[in-house]
Amino acid sequence: MLNELTEKIKTSDKRSVAKALTMVENESEGSEDLLKGIYKFTGKAHRIGITGPPGAGKSTVTNCLIKLLDEKGLKTGVIAVDPTSPFTGGALLGDRIRMQDSGLLQNVFIRSMATRGSLGGLCKNVTEACDVLDAAGKDFIIIETVGVGQSELDIAQTADTTIVVLVPESGDAVQAMKAGLMEIADIFVLNKSDRDGADAVAATIKNIIHLKPPAPDGWIIDVLKTTGSQNKGIGELLDKIFEHKSHLEKTGYLKTKRIQQLKKKIGELLTNKLTVNFWDNEKRKYLNDNLDLIYNKKSDPYSVVETLTKDLLKRK
Amino acid sequence: MLNELTEKIKTSDKRSVAKALTMVENESEGSEDLLKGIYKFTGKAHRIGITGPPGAGKSTVTNCLIKLLDEKGLKTGVIAVDPTSPFTGGALLGDRIRMQDSGLLQNVFIRSMATRGSLGGLCKNVTEACDVLDAAGKDFIIIETVGVGQSELDIAQTADTTIVVLVPESGDAVQAMKAGLMEIADIFVLNKSDRDGADAVAATIKNIIHLKPPAPDGWIIDVLKTTGSQNKGIGELLDKIFEHKSHLEKTGYLKTKRIQQLKKKIGELLTNKLTVNFWDNEKRKYLNDNLDLIYNKKSDPYSVVETLTKDLLKRK
Repeated sequence: MLNELTEKIKTSDKRSVAKALTMVENESEGSEDLLKGIYKFTGKAHRIGITGPPGAGKSTVTNCLIKLLDEKGLKTGVIAVDPTSPFTGGALLGDRIRMQDSGLLQNVFIRSMATRGSLGGLCKNVTEACDVLDAAGKDFIIIETVGVGQSELDIAQTADTTIVVLVPESGDAVQAMKAGLMEIADIFVLNKSDRDGADAVAATIKNIIHLKPPAPDGWIIDVLKTTGSQNKGIGELLDKIFEHKSHLEKTGYLKTKRIQQLKKKIGELLTNKLTVNFWDNEKRKYLNDNLDLIYNKKSDPYSVVETLTKDLLKRK
Repeated sequence: MLNELTEKIKTSDKRSVAKALTMVENESEGSEDLLKGIYKFTGKAHRIGITGPPGAGKSTVTNCLIKLLDEKGLKTGVIAVDPTSPFTGGALLGDRIRMQDSGLLQNVFIRSMATRGSLGGLCKNVTEACDVLDAAGKDFIIIETVGVGQSELDIAQTADTTIVVLVPESGDAVQAMKAGLMEIADIFVLNKSDRDGADAVAATIKNIIHLKPPAPDGWIIDVLKTTGSQNKGIGELLDKIFEHKSHLEKTGYLKTKRIQQLKKKIGELLTNKLTVNFWDNEKRKYLNDNLDLIYNKKSDPYSVVETLTKDLLKRK
């Protein structure tokens, strides 16, 4: 049944891809076997991370890129990551709705994923979702993520090309640097660049880039100006993405990046397996019996963890 | 020597506290034993998380709170978390510098910590740093963190009271919701509220709060207006913090929260120990020998992790 699903995914059958993505997102039974099965069909798609502060117009830029890629006959998958909002549910997916028209394009597959709010949870599922779209024969996979923080660093570790979208309003570039965005960008996009102060902000970002030591692969980070709402500057952006893609391939740095991604992924799989395999009823009982003692300072977390792991260590 | 350091920390000796914080931040040798030793002296301090988008004036608000707490004869510790910026180093610590005047107050201890950019790294070290300040007899510990994303969720899991600072410019509250900030706030602060649109934004936030199901402990989230630069509204904010503190104590929800924090901390310690104990040269060699095979689709991450963990499982 999984083999059948894998075969259908390879034909880019939308229903099967959707089913697989749901399995992966929910980590439901069989999802690991599925991912294991499709793995050998992955690696062809170029993965583009698009990130930046809320309200920068990431979805609009993504939407324009999708259409342009489609015009060029390239197959695109989109994973849009939204923070979970327990009380608003889907109400925040306005951007997604704006994307629907692209979603109707035959070669485009768009999926919204909710962050689990759990450390590591975000990127693990996103990477695996990309693997599904990759096996489905997409040429480009766009990972769009909102927010400024840890999650972006994860995206940068998942994507081959990371694009940071800023707007003149995102204020002085120092704020963006504070948010750690300067470290991860392969390409900067200054969106809504028809607004006042765009040139000044673009200049500031360029100055900051010059402070940065050259990238290990010698890639020169550039700042492009777009106006997504008017579909302006998107062609130049796509050309720059193609340029970065071929740069990574020519320099062999794509392999370096992907090996790093593999190491990270294996580390996550391993941690997960070790933890899952660790817990049994006896250990759970021991932990629960000790929580109150720890809270009342009769014990401490370190001693409890030592005791919990002792018999495991003895076996080594 | 560790006992001596512990004793000095308990006397709030600034040099010893600084030394301990460095040990904890670098996870240098002895830091776990130190934390284990001071654990029984922790739990008295109330931990306040202050977060929000870059440029909201979090440091200014923190600065005002510190001074007010000091006037009231309360001891305060501050952990200011900045994303690591490999190429700018300390250059981003402008906010910290602005805090120096508070830093000179006898009962105030301020420490800047860099995020490691590693999953879990942020919160683990921050929590432990708070334990040091807690053992040093601080009444309040303020954890200030920049950015909008994963790291804030961690802070919310570390703090007893989480304050989200927004500004009229942070645009419509939907953007803040997208950033997941609405879920974690116990108190909202609209800073720079002398600016245009402040009342409108405050009203929007209040409306959104009403959409939210009541907190399990029955706490009512409020929106306070401040102008940090003019030290306005800080007294009301501190009163609200005191109110939340006693609410948590009265309802017994403080214990619930802290037990949750303990579980999280134990989970992190455990994962860390399991992973560290797992790797040996033989396993490392096996992984490195297989990376190229995985990259070339001759193998896959899942099979490699299975093989790596097999002998471990056999022992169970």
